[in-house]
Amino acid sequence: MLKKNIETFLGCDREYDEAKIVLFGAPFDSTTSYRPGTRFASRTMRAESYGLETFSPYLDLDLEDAYVFDGGDLELPFGSVENALKDIEDFTRQIVNDGKIPLMIGGEHLVTLGSVRAVAEKYDDLHVIHFDAHADLRDDYLGAKLSHATVLHRVWDIVGDNKIYQFGIRSGERAEFAWGKEHVQTRRFDFVGLEDVVEKLKGKSVYFTVDLDVLDAAVFPGTGTPEAGGVSFDELRRAMNLVANKCNVVGCDMVELSPPYDQSGISTATALKLLREYLLALDYNINNK
Amino acid sequence: MLKKNIETFLGCDREYDEAKIVLFGAPFDSTTSYRPGTRFASRTMRAESYGLETFSPYLDLDLEDAYVFDGGDLELPFGSVENALKDIEDFTRQIVNDGKIPLMIGGEHLVTLGSVRAVAEKYDDLHVIHFDAHADLRDDYLGAKLSHATVLHRVWDIVGDNKIYQFGIRSGERAEFAWGKEHVQTRRFDFVGLEDVVEKLKGKSVYFTVDLDVLDAAVFPGTGTPEAGGVSFDELRRAMNLVANKCNVVGCDMVELSPPYDQSGISTATALKLLREYLLALDYNINNK
Amino acid sequence: MLKKNIETFLGCDREYDEAKIVLFGAPFDSTTSYRPGTRFASRTMRAESYGLETFSPYLDLDLEDAYVFDGGDLELPFGSVENALKDIEDFTRQIVNDGKIPLMIGGEHLVTLGSVRAVAEKYDDLHVIHFDAHADLRDDYLGAKLSHATVLHRVWDIVGDNKIYQFGIRSGERAEFAWGKEHVQTRRFDFVGLEDVVEKLKGKSVYFTVDLDVLDAAVFPGTGTPEAGGVSFDELRRAMNLVANKCNVVGCDMVELSPPYDQSGISTATALKLLREYLLALDYNINNK
Amino acid sequence: MLKKNIETFLGCDREYDEAKIVLFGAPFDSTTSYRPGTRFASRTMRAESYGLETFSPYLDLDLEDAYVFDGGDLELPFGSVENALKDIEDFTRQIVNDGKIPLMIGGEHLVTLGSVRAVAEKYDDLHVIHFDAHADLRDDYLGAKLSHATVLHRVWDIVGDNKIYQFGIRSGERAEFAWGKEHVQTRRFDFVGLEDVVEKLKGKSVYFTVDLDVLDAAVFPGTGTPEAGGVSFDELRRAMNLVANKCNVVGCDMVELSPPYDQSGISTATALKLLREYLLALDYNINNK
Amino acid sequence: MLKKNIETFLGCDREYDEAKIVLFGAPFDSTTSYRPGTRFASRTMRAESYGLETFSPYLDLDLEDAYVFDGGDLELPFGSVENALKDIEDFTRQIVNDGKIPLMIGGEHLVTLGSVRAVAEKYDDLHVIHFDAHADLRDDYLGAKLSHATVLHRVWDIVGDNKIYQFGIRSGERAEFAWGKEHVQTRRFDFVGLEDVVEKLKGKSVYFTVDLDVLDAAVFPGTGTPEAGGVSFDELRRAMNLVANKCNVVGCDMVELSPPYDQSGISTATALKLLREYLLALDYNINNK
Amino acid sequence: MLKKNIETFLGCDREYDEAKIVLFGAPFDSTTSYRPGTRFASRTMRAESYGLETFSPYLDLDLEDAYVFDGGDLELPFGSVENALKDIEDFTRQIVNDGKIPLMIGGEHLVTLGSVRAVAEKYDDLHVIHFDAHADLRDDYLGAKLSHATVLHRVWDIVGDNKIYQFGIRSGERAEFAWGKEHVQTRRFDFVGLEDVVEKLKGKSVYFTVDLDVLDAAVFPGTGTPEAGGVSFDELRRAMNLVANKCNVVGCDMVELSPPYDQSGISTATALKLLREYLLALDYNINNK
Ligand SMILES: [Mn+2]
Ligand SMILES: [Mn+2]
Ligand SMILES: [Mn+2]
Ligand SMILES: [Mn+2]
Ligand SMILES: [Mn+2]
Ligand SMILES: [Mn+2]
Ligand SMILES: [Mn+2]
Ligand SMILES: [Mn+2]
Ligand SMILES: [Mn+2]
Ligand SMILES: [Mn+2]
Ligand SMILES: [Mn+2]
Ligand SMILES: [Mn+2]
Repeated sequence: MLKKNIETFLGCDREYDEAKIVLFGAPFDSTTSYRPGTRFASRTMRAESYGLETFSPYLDLDLEDAYVFDGGDLELPFGSVENALKDIEDFTRQIVNDGKIPLMIGGEHLVTLGSVRAVAEKYDDLHVIHFDAHADLRDDYLGAKLSHATVLHRVWDIVGDNKIYQFGIRSGERAEFAWGKEHVQTRRFDFVGLEDVVEKLKGKSVYFTVDLDVLDAAVFPGTGTPEAGGVSFDELRRAMNLVANKCNVVGCDMVELSPPYDQSGISTATALKLLREYLLALDYNINNK
Repeated sequence: MLKKNIETFLGCDREYDEAKIVLFGAPFDSTTSYRPGTRFASRTMRAESYGLETFSPYLDLDLEDAYVFDGGDLELPFGSVENALKDIEDFTRQIVNDGKIPLMIGGEHLVTLGSVRAVAEKYDDLHVIHFDAHADLRDDYLGAKLSHATVLHRVWDIVGDNKIYQFGIRSGERAEFAWGKEHVQTRRFDFVGLEDVVEKLKGKSVYFTVDLDVLDAAVFPGTGTPEAGGVSFDELRRAMNLVANKCNVVGCDMVELSPPYDQSGISTATALKLLREYLLALDYNINNK
Repeated sequence: MLKKNIETFLGCDREYDEAKIVLFGAPFDSTTSYRPGTRFASRTMRAESYGLETFSPYLDLDLEDAYVFDGGDLELPFGSVENALKDIEDFTRQIVNDGKIPLMIGGEHLVTLGSVRAVAEKYDDLHVIHFDAHADLRDDYLGAKLSHATVLHRVWDIVGDNKIYQFGIRSGERAEFAWGKEHVQTRRFDFVGLEDVVEKLKGKSVYFTVDLDVLDAAVFPGTGTPEAGGVSFDELRRAMNLVANKCNVVGCDMVELSPPYDQSGISTATALKLLREYLLALDYNINNK
Repeated sequence: MLKKNIETFLGCDREYDEAKIVLFGAPFDSTTSYRPGTRFASRTMRAESYGLETFSPYLDLDLEDAYVFDGGDLELPFGSVENALKDIEDFTRQIVNDGKIPLMIGGEHLVTLGSVRAVAEKYDDLHVIHFDAHADLRDDYLGAKLSHATVLHRVWDIVGDNKIYQFGIRSGERAEFAWGKEHVQTRRFDFVGLEDVVEKLKGKSVYFTVDLDVLDAAVFPGTGTPEAGGVSFDELRRAMNLVANKCNVVGCDMVELSPPYDQSGISTATALKLLREYLLALDYNINNK
Repeated sequence: MLKKNIETFLGCDREYDEAKIVLFGAPFDSTTSYRPGTRFASRTMRAESYGLETFSPYLDLDLEDAYVFDGGDLELPFGSVENALKDIEDFTRQIVNDGKIPLMIGGEHLVTLGSVRAVAEKYDDLHVIHFDAHADLRDDYLGAKLSHATVLHRVWDIVGDNKIYQFGIRSGERAEFAWGKEHVQTRRFDFVGLEDVVEKLKGKSVYFTVDLDVLDAAVFPGTGTPEAGGVSFDELRRAMNLVANKCNVVGCDMVELSPPYDQSGISTATALKLLREYLLALDYNINNK
Repeated sequence: MLKKNIETFLGCDREYDEAKIVLFGAPFDSTTSYRPGTRFASRTMRAESYGLETFSPYLDLDLEDAYVFDGGDLELPFGSVENALKDIEDFTRQIVNDGKIPLMIGGEHLVTLGSVRAVAEKYDDLHVIHFDAHADLRDDYLGAKLSHATVLHRVWDIVGDNKIYQFGIRSGERAEFAWGKEHVQTRRFDFVGLEDVVEKLKGKSVYFTVDLDVLDAAVFPGTGTPEAGGVSFDELRRAMNLVANKCNVVGCDMVELSPPYDQSGISTATALKLLREYLLALDYNINNK
């Protein structure tokens, strides 16, 4: 008798019970103000993942040995921001309550808020490491409090002063940078200082959010607001590896891939390779600490 | 001394005071569930309009003689549906209160609700003619009451039973069609019966909403949910001309062009030609009745 | 506990046991001589099917009531034509031996040969109805006996003279048409005569193969060799409905959608709607005869 | 010893001496005011022609039997309009002086002027049949006398009143149509009346110019200014066949394919099929009159 | 009463009177020999500029404080090169005569000639800094004296020997490089030596022309002739900043963005960010010297 | 009398007799498992080569002085892998037997096998230098022995242990890397060590195969399986130059450009520039040793 068609990210085919890391997609981009399309990221990544190898020549590790479960994509209501965040929060809560690490694939950056709400509920004194081209620190955007452009401000509402560490930031309005100086630590353009931060956060619970537009526009054209002057694939790969190896990551996400603007497919392929490398490092770190 | 750069739809350069018809864009697609992008329609149409002639060989009329003002695009908040509708309603109210006919360019179909709210406030016993591939009659969509998929149900909330006349409908869920049978008049696939409806509505105030996906997918690929089996350009041109000529149109819109899915540009060019023909017919009818 | 991600064509979520029709994908295009890409058809159709409704306003039937199982995609070896055909044949054999109707989504047209081999093994006196822009009757193509351009000749090797009925043919070399005159019945350009054929085949077992390039190039750009002068969506929908209603279809397929050449997505959307209409008609016919 | 790589349009591989028809490309689009790209038409058509068959199922004729020579593409100076026209004129003159029929592939429509200059020099009382969406009758365009938008006015300067027959016209400025009424015969939208014209021109020398944008925008998106409401492939195929069969064509061209706007390739494929059918009809007519 | 729709580059909304810098577009590409499309650059940049921030995290300056006027786009005749240059010259003359700095957005590189003509008329001993992948030093191109490939030779006709400083050059014919050795200073591949040049030109009037294809093809695909091996965004940003800060720029331009080849939009976004950074530096320098 | 249209790579127009290097295309991609399209590489490169200069500002050499013949493209049977390899082998044999160096343009990487078979037949003790992102060392791929993913294993079958030197490798399955350690020399990610290898191979016959996906995905998106983290254009240019200058290259190829995934054209332009630089270096080396 034939079985139903199961689709997972390449090599992420563990059962939920045995998994340490739980991947899922949050296909939502209702507040995207410029070029929409991140809603298609998780399913495109899943479909394209079969063009990737499970083995990493960087780490000499293989996804076939890792403990990752793919929970598929949430079905989120467009045009109903608070409900969508609620669904993400509930799904994330189940994962963290089962003692697993959620790894959410966006969607626009606002989805991070749903996940952080659930993670912060479980883990006290939560710190946040944030890679992005954009500060995302506005208090409101055209009157809306919930927006991809305000998401780190909303996260700050939860975690408070001096808990958020931003890297790679190269875009924002004057007021954001001014506000940021008082409340978060922002490193512009690159990852200088990350080693110190990682050292400093030893023992703390860390939420790690990666907005892929931190990459240079040439490396990652497939995003809503591509920004020139960004980091290279190898810089991001190493920085993510550092966080996975040295921090106590209790929740994480990777957001802002927008397949409609990735005609050649290199952005999806790059996101997938970063995901593989990060999953392998995180899984290795969990099993060997 | 040099003057600032003014951009209008081709030939729509009358002053507000003298205009009979007021064009404006409502760039909003937050509730689009499938393929977003209609937010780019009005500015793409404005930019591409210079590839069109102002003269119509169908009507032997010229836009240079028409009384149309282009008010530009509203700046609408993404992710905040009710606020966006409010802004549309306020803008439309000003136009109808000044005794002019609003012609809104969407955006997704939900923007119609903002415009109808203002128009229905001014005109009693409002009737609605609706061209679309989709019934848009759901009561809610994944829990959301305000959605492109519910917009005609929301319009029905305002105008009531037997006031809405749908044509060209070829997609919807079973429940929508069932509900529709009780509350609206639906013609599937084509415009058969439009002449009778137009005759019947003589003397009534009519809101006319054209979802461009009523066109066949081959003719109009650049839309969120293209549907095969639709009407031709000429069928739609004639049907729109009939409404412009025979009805007392007090408000209208043209929605669902999505430039990101219009790689060849034929959908934008087609929408522009329909807009020109409709504007000319409506303007002629206003000035000659 | 979370469950694994199951992906099926929209509404085709019956269990294998209860299903009457079994859908599956054959992602293979190794012999395509011109523009490759049909290998992506089945997974693109599955992903895009959520933009479709399950309800048909043509038939007033709903896929939620139909008995269709989606078996996913075969993993076929590229560059090894005979092995790929063998895998298709084996998979199809299992389905027909379980008393169900296989509905294969190509892939290039050669995949039909694998399916026909299994179906012809089970059903004697098999007749074939073939919709296509191309005759596909070459005996070899650049020396290769197994090719999308020879597939109906290979099917003729199995079923013999006067068993194959072609419709819509508008391309081929002179020799193919000459050979065809002796061995198959070919209707050029359209479906004239299909009603007679369907009448004549009453009681016979029929394999039904639809090469979607029978559609006009404007309606269906997303295929390897688009041909102007083809049939419309509605003509094909009605013709497929006729076969589903009147014939004893024991196996069928739909081939040659090539997503890389379908930038706007209208070809995929059109293929999906044809699939829905055909599935509904076939399912209805099975359950009501 | 290996030979150099020769590239011709499919099946057009006769030697110059024996040929009756001489094909060549005029890759020029310097005066295109809207979307450029027709400069790529001839080489794209040549490259894509191997996706076509040499046999016509419409005519039961084969290009392998026809007498057509492909002279390649002219190398024309961009930004130097008069020089480019001179080069075209000289090349065409050689062909007509050798007693052959030139068939030029544009490029923008202005290239027709170069060809007509040479043809009119040789053939007295030249008449012109013109298929187009656009009247192309302006006297100047933004001050320029030589433009794709003025080309038929320039041709009129040569051939004079009542020698130009236009069909399919559906775009132009008011003044053009007014001027045209006095000097040329214009049929709007379709080919009605072509049979009478063809009858009337019996015995006359005819230059036949086909601007492919006469086709509907859905059928032929790949052109600079696509216009909805045009003719179908079959209508154009039949109209071109009529001219080839009944007129004494002494020169001809096919212009305005713009490959950069033909992402799916259907416009190129359609142009090629029209070229094949027209070549076969013309060749047949030459050899059988 | 509603006002007409004004469109400017983001943040460039000063009145003409108060502005120090005057931006305008020169949409012209008639002599482009390879891939046309730069005619769309200025309007695409204007439309896309709303995806950018007005604030620069590099300079801690904001366009809201700068004195820049946007004069819109010139309407230039295609196919009439000398007339187009005349229109550019006249427009530029007005700006320089009003004591302001023209910043022209191309168009192809030939537009620089029109601007230089006006600027050189006003400023004696004009020097030119030229960033480009191409030498643009031919004396003629396929017989034409006025071409994007000859523009710097034409500029040399005006300014004379040893006044032109080229950087980043990595393409040209042998003869161009040979001629250049005698008449201009050419730095191949990068910006080495720019600091010395800038020092040397202290006190001189400088025209600064930036052909954006000096950027690496990966960083800037959206141009007519992309060349691998170019400079990075950051290298160009710094080099432009150096010129803006240290030179007495009396006229400038930015040319060769070609939106039709910028499917992902990264080239437009990159051009806009370079424009913002350059405007801020130039404005700051003007107001603080 | 007019001559037939000859098309060659830019500047490669020597007669066969006088040529030292023979270029030809092998348009074949039947075993490509992920994204097909390399079949279009050679003809796209030939067509686009006219956007390139013949002169190299890196080497101060000009293709007009080089001795290169372009033999056009082979016509290879799709779906018949062994026959295609046979055709390549036969064509290559003729070239090497005439004492010339074959330079094949793929196609997928498997075409290398055909060429190596002929070259190894003529030259004893053949060594292979292999640039690639992928190890290509599988013994079989989904059961197939002949595949782009096994090609270097098949080459090893011919040349034996320690004859293959791989550089730039950053993708493969665990088993490939393990097998490779015993039989070939693999340098991951970059060209470190190439100088030593080149020194060591002095006097040996070398086959040089360049899979262009060794380039970073941002630099070279137009390939079947783009891989982030690759080398830059300049690194590859220098490495290819080193091999051309220091090795006794007796056969070579450049494979895996896939034009359908190169929307902006930068991959084709980059491949062409690498080809020019490599041809000039190889030609110079042949004539000066
Ligand atoms: Mn962000
Ligand atoms: Mn961001
Ligand atoms: Mn609608
Ligand atoms: Mn609709
Ligand atoms: Mn077929
Ligand atoms: Mn076919
Ligand atoms: Mn024309
Ligand atoms: Mn035209
Ligand atoms: Mn230049
Ligand atoms: Mn340049
Ligand atoms: Mn390889
Ligand atoms: Mn590779």
